[in-house]
Amino acid sequence: MGEFDLIARYFTRPARQAVLGVGDDCALLAPRPGMQLAISSDMLVQGRHFFADVDPAALGHKALAVNLSDLAACGARPLAFTLALALPQIDEPWLAGFSAGLLALADEHGCELVGGDTTQGPLNICITVFGEVPAGQALLRSGARAGDDIYVSGTLGDARLALEALFGHVELPAAALQAARQRLERPTPRVALGLALRGIASSALDVSDGLTGDLGHILKASGVGATLDAAAISQLLAARAWFAAGGSQFPPELLHQCTLAGGDDYELAFTAPAARREAVQAAARQAGVPVTRIGTVDGTPGLRLVDGQGLPLAQRPASFDHFGTSQ
Amino acid sequence: MGEFDLIARYFTRPARQAVLGVGDDCALLAPRPGMQLAISSDMLVQGRHFFADVDPAALGHKALAVNLSDLAACGARPLAFTLALALPQIDEPWLAGFSAGLLALADEHGCELVGGDTTQGPLNICITVFGEVPAGQALLRSGARAGDDIYVSGTLGDARLALEALFGHVELPAAALQAARQRLERPTPRVALGLALRGIASSALDVSDGLTGDLGHILKASGVGATLDAAAISQLLAARAWFAAGGSQFPPELLHQCTLAGGDDYELAFTAPAARREAVQAAARQAGVPVTRIGTVDGTPGLRLVDGQGLPLAQRPASFDHFGTSQ
Repeated sequence: MGEFDLIARYFTRPARQAVLGVGDDCALLAPRPGMQLAISSDMLVQGRHFFADVDPAALGHKALAVNLSDLAACGARPLAFTLALALPQIDEPWLAGFSAGLLALADEHGCELVGGDTTQGPLNICITVFGEVPAGQALLRSGARAGDDIYVSGTLGDARLALEALFGHVELPAAALQAARQRLERPTPRVALGLALRGIASSALDVSDGLTGDLGHILKASGVGATLDAAAISQLLAARAWFAAGGSQFPPELLHQCTLAGGDDYELAFTAPAARREAVQAAARQAGVPVTRIGTVDGTPGLRLVDGQGLPLAQRPASFDHFGTSQ
Repeated sequence: MGEFDLIARYFTRPARQAVLGVGDDCALLAPRPGMQLAISSDMLVQGRHFFADVDPAALGHKALAVNLSDLAACGARPLAFTLALALPQIDEPWLAGFSAGLLALADEHGCELVGGDTTQGPLNICITVFGEVPAGQALLRSGARAGDDIYVSGTLGDARLALEALFGHVELPAAALQAARQRLERPTPRVALGLALRGIASSALDVSDGLTGDLGHILKASGVGATLDAAAISQLLAARAWFAAGGSQFPPELLHQCTLAGGDDYELAFTAPAARREAVQAAARQAGVPVTRIGTVDGTPGLRLVDGQGLPLAQRPASFDHFGTSQ
């Protein structure tokens, strides 16, 4: 099987919304009048973003999910994506699994594969995703204002916990590991929430490298500071329930590490004026995902963590950096 | 230096045409009314597309050039691109060279870097490029009709010849090698020609994997066949002049291999009605690149090569396939 058969068999489907899909020099998209095109690109590398033995269907899902998560963070509706794929060799069962996982998530979001590239090389997956958002309505990192509430969607830290367990740093009950691993390997992009938050959130991003590090980007872009309630945040680790059920306490240091700086959460962190609390909760109900208020934006530069009593937390764990150095 | 410093130092410049550039979850483009967005993505892998010791500035140039070449083939005007980059380690001199070569070509075409990704991993460069083309005016592979002329721009085969010389399969005078190597390492995307051919060419693509294999895509998409003049095509190897000057003949088999199936040419191959010959030449003059008529589209499926006397050429060299098998 050559390059062109591979593309035809696993990655070519008729264009639906796109003017032109896979098979020419370029794909053609026709954005609707008044719409801006939101674009994001993520590259996944074996050993850095996934294990060599990961289920290919899960990898296909995740490769697109992390890109859809960026569209969600901007409040953009997914339209299409391109896939560039370097493969050590043509492994048909792997390709069948990968494309099935990829295209299932794509179909769920009406996001069609319109082009890309395949080549031989160390396994590398690069997806570029396109969404549309009405002009001026994109959720940006730069809109947070002093006095805004800070929220995060869903749960936090379970993906990191799964990683720690897979590395043998912590032991989890089998069912807890399975649930956490699902969060690591099959993240859910919060597309519906991003859309529902347009006109409500003052800023947003997706939590991919760890909550505090990622929130730092909002603070920097908005020229503000923030105080976060670490106690409220530590409640967001789903796996805590397994420890509570077994009568044991979750190791506190690991709890902070996972929830504050875990990485791979793909939840939305966002800010909204305090006057919009009801609108935020209505958006969350509409999108079918809980959101939790975790802090407040203020005018003092920097990010402060306080415990349940409002006392400063001594140490802040480092966020994930793709070159292995702490930020 | 971490991921974010790297992006800030080498790949962040203020957005010009884009609504939003590097630094948020997504970039935002606002296509003009009546315009379609042309999108193409190419992934370059060390050992497959370039040598480990290639000049990083040339590599930066080429990584964008091969993508701009796809826009050229569609008659699209370059707007913006994203860059995803996997690097074994942060090597600042390499990054400085790479980004200089990349951004110089980007500036030449008014094509701005709006986003992307960086990560640690085996060297891999994935660029996705965006251009605009008036609705319905994109040059496609599917428009060739029986009776159309077939053209190719510029010169053919010198990139492949450089590769053969670098592998030690052929010996070239130093100046000839230097010229051929320039074609391999710093291809010129024929953007102006693609724009000038809108409304004139009936089909087009860029020659990246070898002329005959690539033309096969046009024939298949258009449901036609073609006859090519191998003698006219063999004139298009620029390096022939060096051999002629030295009084020696270029090895005929290598000549056909390089011009008919060389790869890495990044010239435009296109078809146009015979009635538009003057318009084609006017477009070529406007774009400042010669185009040569090399054959005719007909209704008989398949691609036939004839020599200067119109007699069939016995053997057709195989095109390049990114998984190393012949097509």
